[in-house]
Amino acid sequence: MQLNAPLSMDYSGFGFDILKRDTNSRARLGRLQTPHGDLLTPGFIFCATKAAIRGASPRDMRAVNAEIVLANTYHLLIQPGPDVVERLGGLHKFMGWDGPMLTDSGGFQIFSLGQGTESSEIKGSRPNRRNPLLLELSKKGAVFRSPRNGTKHTLTPESSIQIQRQLRPDLAVVLDECTPVHVDRDYTEKSLMLTHNWAKRSLTEFARHHDGTQALYGVVQGGIYEDLRRQGAETIASMPFFGHAVGGCLGDHKEAMYDIIEYAMRSLAKTGSKRPVHLLGIGGIRDIWEGVAMGIDTFDCVTPTRIARHGWALKRNVESFRINLRNARFREDPRPIDESCDCYVCQNFSRGYIHHLFKSHEILGLQLLTQHNIAFMVGLMSEIRSALSCGKFEEVKKDWLCG
Amino acid sequence: MQLNAPLSMDYSGFGFDILKRDTNSRARLGRLQTPHGDLLTPGFIFCATKAAIRGASPRDMRAVNAEIVLANTYHLLIQPGPDVVERLGGLHKFMGWDGPMLTDSGGFQIFSLGQGTESSEIKGSRPNRRNPLLLELSKKGAVFRSPRNGTKHTLTPESSIQIQRQLRPDLAVVLDECTPVHVDRDYTEKSLMLTHNWAKRSLTEFARHHDGTQALYGVVQGGIYEDLRRQGAETIASMPFFGHAVGGCLGDHKEAMYDIIEYAMRSLAKTGSKRPVHLLGIGGIRDIWEGVAMGIDTFDCVTPTRIARHGWALKRNVESFRINLRNARFREDPRPIDESCDCYVCQNFSRGYIHHLFKSHEILGLQLLTQHNIAFMVGLMSEIRSALSCGKFEEVKKDWLCG
Repeated sequence: MQLNAPLSMDYSGFGFDILKRDTNSRARLGRLQTPHGDLLTPGFIFCATKAAIRGASPRDMRAVNAEIVLANTYHLLIQPGPDVVERLGGLHKFMGWDGPMLTDSGGFQIFSLGQGTESSEIKGSRPNRRNPLLLELSKKGAVFRSPRNGTKHTLTPESSIQIQRQLRPDLAVVLDECTPVHVDRDYTEKSLMLTHNWAKRSLTEFARHHDGTQALYGVVQGGIYEDLRRQGAETIASMPFFGHAVGGCLGDHKEAMYDIIEYAMRSLAKTGSKRPVHLLGIGGIRDIWEGVAMGIDTFDCVTPTRIARHGWALKRNVESFRINLRNARFREDPRPIDESCDCYVCQNFSRGYIHHLFKSHEILGLQLLTQHNIAFMVGLMSEIRSALSCGKFEEVKKDWLCG
Repeated sequence: MQLNAPLSMDYSGFGFDILKRDTNSRARLGRLQTPHGDLLTPGFIFCATKAAIRGASPRDMRAVNAEIVLANTYHLLIQPGPDVVERLGGLHKFMGWDGPMLTDSGGFQIFSLGQGTESSEIKGSRPNRRNPLLLELSKKGAVFRSPRNGTKHTLTPESSIQIQRQLRPDLAVVLDECTPVHVDRDYTEKSLMLTHNWAKRSLTEFARHHDGTQALYGVVQGGIYEDLRRQGAETIASMPFFGHAVGGCLGDHKEAMYDIIEYAMRSLAKTGSKRPVHLLGIGGIRDIWEGVAMGIDTFDCVTPTRIARHGWALKRNVESFRINLRNARFREDPRPIDESCDCYVCQNFSRGYIHHLFKSHEILGLQLLTQHNIAFMVGLMSEIRSALSCGKFEEVKKDWLCG
């Protein structure tokens, strides 16, 4: 298929300035400009998958200085549908968020319908084939059934761009095939070619109606293979995207994941690209420090808000950076989650109270932990930026990860 | 049983000033003073039954100018236990609420264990005898099992006061027997005598450790019988309580309920009492207007926050003062719940968005409706006070109820 993909794109309403670089790693301090305001990087993008942060209103998000959220094209295609969002003024107006916003293309979610659950796939665990809602995956795109009501939907690179135009985020992401974990090199290579074909078609469609209100991210795939990741990085970097996203199969354990991200990031660095780089769906505390060191500028992950709903509070200097407030040892604990945290929750409530809320099945418990965990992530990113700003990235990183 | 019940009580840290009286009804504008601030009356007390408003933090409550909350002695006895609340600094500190607070005695809830569900009982529907957790009800008090873990608890008039002292609300309520709907006059009369005996014992216990930080409400019972309600009102008014609460069986339909409240209120008015009067557990929009007209100063009801969790938004000029945002007709409705409402929700979100949140099972939907419904109730009470202040109570009442 011959494509007249654009060779350049005008992103004049947007910008990405690298303000400072770390001397010992690829870590960098930056400012990403969008029509809805600037985002300092490294930054964390909070998941408002279905156009809502679970347990926190935009006002709650602003109260802890959260700067950017993302929504998901696939989920909003299923409910309420892009036409509804468009008629209600686009995502910003729809969900009452006036800051920067990104939408993911939905490729990962559609892929998950066929091969496994969302979380099992990204974590590399075994796929779940019981519910094959993905009817067809071809060069053209993906045909799938709505898990909501069985309705048949088609998502193509073009329609993903069209839908994201209706949704109107600042930052859009191209549709890609999110390569499964348990496939061989041959499948991964073919999948990579498909992703690159889709990337070109996405750019062509994007250029057709480009009006300066949106900027597009291309996705670097390539599975677990160093050469394919390099090829993925080079190909995507050669196209006129505003930013790069690193996605797909990242191996089946942490160290493999860091290696794979490093393949992509090393290659992106060699291309001389000065575009912002987003790491799709990864955002553990250690992942963020390691990712920043490799040159990642933004992260997103459902974990901070998801674990809040199960009683977990993010906290420094404890195993896995979290404590579970449902634990009986917190029953009469008068201390806040974190004495050094200045969020509303830590300033006003004891661990004992939050323990009581979870014991009583009071939803305020998850609301408070959600608040705290968002504040924690905002604080973490702020600390990373401070460390970069004063040239102490390596030192502060060690302090966090070995402290 | 001979009791040395106190003949007077010093409530110098508290006060209730009647600022203005309506000329056509018993409605009155007042100011209730507590150690945690003043409450303008008529006022609405929001139910934080288990020491939490479902779906709203104290900060959310303050954002809409909510002034007072209540918690429940029975529920907090079951979980986390009064000792825990006491060790964590009392209810205000425990739940992060620094305004006026009342605790209900738990009589209604214990009674419900034996005879029916909480809501079926107050609404006069048939009792549910399948789960008789109330083991014993005697002159001494009530013995019951925790529905949580089967633990046996005893609640007596004395222990209810002791527990409320540990919980440390500003306003406490005596333990009473909440008379069932389907009992005869003879049972109701005996029950009333028991309630009066308990009222004396409560005062005696209250006086033993009274330190000026709490004020006590006596409860007017008497079932559906005019003479017993009169007797209830006169007896409670003759004791040194700070305030009166009207409770118990209020008949099995709205008009009967208003008649029964009127029996109690007419008698309380005749006693010449200038104490604040609280109507326990009743707070529909019409109920509030009618109650205020009869001289009720404060109301409490779970309805505003409970119906929010099921998609209902309170709204003026519609049937039953509510609309259900889950209804498909709101799918693309760009309007706020109420154009004239200045709450955060109505200023920032469309009906279409809230509809989407409920369709998507996003808890933000119930959080937003909870916010709006609390704002609505605060606004309603404020409008009632304004109407009283400018002598237009009857007019504004008609406008609300017939508009």
